[in-house]
Amino acid sequence: MANAAIYPGSFDPVTNGHIDLIKRASRIFENVIVAVADNSRKSPLFTIEERMDMVRQAVAGMKNITVESFDGLMVDYARRKKINVIIRGLRMISDFEYEFQMALTNRRLADTIETVFLMPSENYSYVSSTLLKEAASLGGDISAFVPDTVQKRLKERLQS
Amino acid sequence: MANAAIYPGSFDPVTNGHIDLIKRASRIFENVIVAVADNSRKSPLFTIEERMDMVRQAVAGMKNITVESFDGLMVDYARRKKINVIIRGLRMISDFEYEFQMALTNRRLADTIETVFLMPSENYSYVSSTLLKEAASLGGDISAFVPDTVQKRLKERLQS
Amino acid sequence: MANAAIYPGSFDPVTNGHIDLIKRASRIFENVIVAVADNSRKSPLFTIEERMDMVRQAVAGMKNITVESFDGLMVDYARRKKINVIIRGLRMISDFEYEFQMALTNRRLADTIETVFLMPSENYSYVSSTLLKEAASLGGDISAFVPDTVQKRLKERLQS
Amino acid sequence: MANAAIYPGSFDPVTNGHIDLIKRASRIFENVIVAVADNSRKSPLFTIEERMDMVRQAVAGMKNITVESFDGLMVDYARRKKINVIIRGLRMISDFEYEFQMALTNRRLADTIETVFLMPSENYSYVSSTLLKEAASLGGDISAFVPDTVQKRLKERLQS
Amino acid sequence: MANAAIYPGSFDPVTNGHIDLIKRASRIFENVIVAVADNSRKSPLFTIEERMDMVRQAVAGMKNITVESFDGLMVDYARRKKINVIIRGLRMISDFEYEFQMALTNRRLADTIETVFLMPSENYSYVSSTLLKEAASLGGDISAFVPDTVQKRLKERLQS
Amino acid sequence: MANAAIYPGSFDPVTNGHIDLIKRASRIFENVIVAVADNSRKSPLFTIEERMDMVRQAVAGMKNITVESFDGLMVDYARRKKINVIIRGLRMISDFEYEFQMALTNRRLADTIETVFLMPSENYSYVSSTLLKEAASLGGDISAFVPDTVQKRLKERLQS
Repeated sequence: MANAAIYPGSFDPVTNGHIDLIKRASRIFENVIVAVADNSRKSPLFTIEERMDMVRQAVAGMKNITVESFDGLMVDYARRKKINVIIRGLRMISDFEYEFQMALTNRRLADTIETVFLMPSENYSYVSSTLLKEAASLGGDISAFVPDTVQKRLKERLQS
Repeated sequence: MANAAIYPGSFDPVTNGHIDLIKRASRIFENVIVAVADNSRKSPLFTIEERMDMVRQAVAGMKNITVESFDGLMVDYARRKKINVIIRGLRMISDFEYEFQMALTNRRLADTIETVFLMPSENYSYVSSTLLKEAASLGGDISAFVPDTVQKRLKERLQS
Repeated sequence: MANAAIYPGSFDPVTNGHIDLIKRASRIFENVIVAVADNSRKSPLFTIEERMDMVRQAVAGMKNITVESFDGLMVDYARRKKINVIIRGLRMISDFEYEFQMALTNRRLADTIETVFLMPSENYSYVSSTLLKEAASLGGDISAFVPDTVQKRLKERLQS
Repeated sequence: MANAAIYPGSFDPVTNGHIDLIKRASRIFENVIVAVADNSRKSPLFTIEERMDMVRQAVAGMKNITVESFDGLMVDYARRKKINVIIRGLRMISDFEYEFQMALTNRRLADTIETVFLMPSENYSYVSSTLLKEAASLGGDISAFVPDTVQKRLKERLQS
Repeated sequence: MANAAIYPGSFDPVTNGHIDLIKRASRIFENVIVAVADNSRKSPLFTIEERMDMVRQAVAGMKNITVESFDGLMVDYARRKKINVIIRGLRMISDFEYEFQMALTNRRLADTIETVFLMPSENYSYVSSTLLKEAASLGGDISAFVPDTVQKRLKERLQS
Repeated sequence: MANAAIYPGSFDPVTNGHIDLIKRASRIFENVIVAVADNSRKSPLFTIEERMDMVRQAVAGMKNITVESFDGLMVDYARRKKINVIIRGLRMISDFEYEFQMALTNRRLADTIETVFLMPSENYSYVSSTLLKEAASLGGDISAFVPDTVQKRLKERLQS
């Protein structure tokens, strides 16, 4: 597939920061696959179906976005899809280091695959799924950081 | 309460670095509340009562310091106390990033509350409760980093 | 003067980031002195009078703000004013390191003076006077980053 | 122009790190314009013609690369070319911060233009034109870091 | 022991990055002890014997290298060995901060012991045992990052 | 020369931080050469003779320290001396990045020469010759940061 890119992640759950990045990616690449990692070992709060569902609702109406899941090595998934561009968001220094380690390791695992970094809006640069889950579990109003449906689901999950 | 500030943390246990910061805060603000987080999910080594006790002994004799506990969101606690200044110590870059994420998230959750950062003495800038607990559990002499009573309690706890 | 703080800087020129920080400081401290450094060796674009003028216009209507100039060591200035709190903005890691060096050096030069760090809004965290002057000199529209009068003056200065 | 990107810089002179990045960009985008900044105020070692010349020799044989010069604001140049993707290399943390400041400022100056970051090979991640010029001026053999013609020109320039 | 140094770590498992560092250390110090931490609380993937075994195979043929294990505080181990130099590798900023905390804490625990930092080759600067174990568990080919025997053992362990 | 190391720098002027590092180096290596860079292009405040003089006074009484000057590439100087260890101090993240760039460039220029990093005491980790010269020129009392003779010379130089 020419001029396509994969945006992989856990999306547990998708935040406004992720959505901002997907929009930016969709203006640069003809096709963007949001690839939700089916990594059960990390014991995500939401199942892979729930996470894909929330991403799908968030990108509804955006034409060149597809939502998929993958397991195993991300570079193997990219190779199977014949896509050689990986998109990652860079928000902070700690992102930067981890992402570099990951990107250089991936490059050695599959040297035709290139990682491309995009910057989210500064309004979302500090939003982290982990912090949001913590805030929501303590009763915080996180409506500024996630779509409405995500907020609702988080509330249900964390209070049940 | 006018001109008051909250210094929140786990204090598991309080170190000389925390005490240095409390002293500095007490010279800037009329009242400083050291707010010990009652966050049982993080499975602290010491109970909330033990942690408050150790802080109280450490600040005995300092007039404008109060020791309290809180649970739930820290910004909700600050609102209930009608205090709009949060104090945090900045020791290192990794602190910096986490603290910024936290402070910007808190600002969005409660926009009248301001986070103020203080620098501990360079003699304590590298002291971390986590490293100290590890060193103490391996038999290290950590008397340079914590008050005597804390050292004693750590010894008892880690050897029992 | 009890409960006062000094916010020192070059303000060459004042930006919306500085103004955001002044507003935050004015909600924490009873009196805030914006202290413009009269450091001719750094060959600022604007004279000390022009820089003070632009700050004064920017803080017009804010009650507890004073604008002054100083030369010599900042800690000597603070001692003369009998103020023991210095305010600095922390935007980025590189700020962080420089500011720490400065604050620790100042602490050794005058150990009763404490540096307090505030965070500007994320909307201004990347605004730098230096970058703005460069952008303005190349014809960029910088109206999103500075007050109108500053923009006008920058235009006049850089095109003359 | 669909699916094109601009890679701007001083290229004073072009290094193997730049060339590595151009190759990576050329595998992602259909057309890549290497845009050499004609910024005489920064008093470059080589003239704009010399710098373009060295880049042209370095990319000879690569089909989808064009070399141009620009002056004024980079985002204005991008707008004139109707290209909305800027490429920048990220090598280190200090890059990261400066590039973020720049990219966020550019985004505010022209919000349809997106900055995309690529990582050079780890073998070039520490190569800097500034360090190389310093090493060459002290007689160092920098043949591992630049194309042969660049090395030759540097030698001539720095010894004359 | 004159002019000897200890290179402590978990080595779970040893990587080409570690081996690169051991080689560099062996050119600086007359004797280098690779000290494998017998820290069962961190639940390593390989037993202490397996980890020592893999290091021994990796350094076979290097004359001035010894492989040992230790438990308890590393500085106590160094004191028992009468060695006052600790070697650590610095790869990234996050290393840097953790290592500094550790080194300054160790210095306070034992002030005659000095920590010396070496830089691995840039080709290994991003290699992390943790990332490698994750990649291997997902079926990744990690032969570029570890010795053959380590790769084989990882495969057996992670697939059993 | 076996087991010798070079500690290069500008030493313009030598600070207590440098002296702390020299002491630490002298406990690790049998011979340490403090190599003062005769780099006139950087327009140092003190001449090469003055800078060597101040270092010599600072290390008087330390047996295994020699003070020399060098010009040209540092690795060429090391090769001429047949010494393959360079010592550098690491104080902060910004040091870290610059030093890494330098060390990796040097490694490529001369691959038998290894850079070894030491950490100064936390009491000197923020001391910078540049900040000190600025403070001294503004009348600051910098006696806590430099030897007495250096302070005297700085005063004379900056007031003449």
